[in-house]
Amino acid sequence: MSSYIEPIAKLVHELSKLPGVGNKTAVRYAYTIIKMSNEEVQTLASAIVEAKKNTRFCSVCGSITTLDVCEICSKRKPTQICVVKETKDVLAIERIGEFNGQYHVLNGTLSPVDGIGPDDIRIKELVGRVCKGDVEEVILATNPDVEGEVTANYIAQTLRPFGVKITRIAQGVPVGSDLEYADIATLSNAIQMRVEF
Amino acid sequence: MSSYIEPIAKLVHELSKLPGVGNKTAVRYAYTIIKMSNEEVQTLASAIVEAKKNTRFCSVCGSITTLDVCEICSKRKPTQICVVKETKDVLAIERIGEFNGQYHVLNGTLSPVDGIGPDDIRIKELVGRVCKGDVEEVILATNPDVEGEVTANYIAQTLRPFGVKITRIAQGVPVGSDLEYADIATLSNAIQMRVEF
Repeated sequence: MSSYIEPIAKLVHELSKLPGVGNKTAVRYAYTIIKMSNEEVQTLASAIVEAKKNTRFCSVCGSITTLDVCEICSKRKPTQICVVKETKDVLAIERIGEFNGQYHVLNGTLSPVDGIGPDDIRIKELVGRVCKGDVEEVILATNPDVEGEVTANYIAQTLRPFGVKITRIAQGVPVGSDLEYADIATLSNAIQMRVEF
Repeated sequence: MSSYIEPIAKLVHELSKLPGVGNKTAVRYAYTIIKMSNEEVQTLASAIVEAKKNTRFCSVCGSITTLDVCEICSKRKPTQICVVKETKDVLAIERIGEFNGQYHVLNGTLSPVDGIGPDDIRIKELVGRVCKGDVEEVILATNPDVEGEVTANYIAQTLRPFGVKITRIAQGVPVGSDLEYADIATLSNAIQMRVEF
């Protein structure tokens, strides 16, 4: 008995599919699950199945929702569209409580290394929304990393012919940070993109 | 929509019960699960339920097994009993391939801080096994930390009247390590417990 018994090995294998979960972590999770009460285990398993069953992508913005058209898309006008990588980013921006437009979730970013091209993320759907003519501004809020920049650039070029205003979220030193510890790229951007006081 | 939709919030809540999983990690897991195929989600959920359903504690040693009496207990003699904290520790020792006795899994260690006393871990069951008379040596292989030491000491005292040989796994500098980086307690033990060359 130098390896895990079959039901545990199987559970460990499945849990290892979660992001950042290696064999050791999966084993810890598996033993915790086995030690839970029957009821707790059932609740966990059904929460997993129900979350998958009861969620879908909003047919307008592509965010994860329980409805066909999400709460935001059904309530707000598409004058401003904020383009983000994932549904999580919608929540992050909503937390500020200052943006009143709609979103567009790409569900990914361009990444030639991983073989993710323009057709693999929801760029066509964004063009479709801009085509309708109600959009005045597209705010590109993809992450300030290589993939996010490449994606933002690609979208900006694609939307250029439609004459819509295209903006990119500001990059600079984060509030409350210490210049001494800012990385070179961040500090360089903060100086290049300085604004008049 | 500044907070998670209900099925996700519920899944996040359940996933947060796994060890070391905070809100952020649970959210990452939840979104990964939602993006899995229906089949993958079903496999994960049933692996959880099946692992719980098809495992039990060995009626002899207390390790997690699919049988009533585990493979080790049904094949080996109880001349030597190696006492460990958890089933995981049985696997760790089995991997060496040198120990041929039975195990005794305590399923915990004494921890007054957490209110875990002698009746909460499987000490009574160990005494019961020693009473039967076939046991010649009890090897205390609880972790070399405070709880593990306290537990080993308590068990040693409890078993003393039965006249059985009681040993504790050696503590010292680990193989392949560098003395310079060994902590004081480890180095102190290594010197105190030195053996003749």
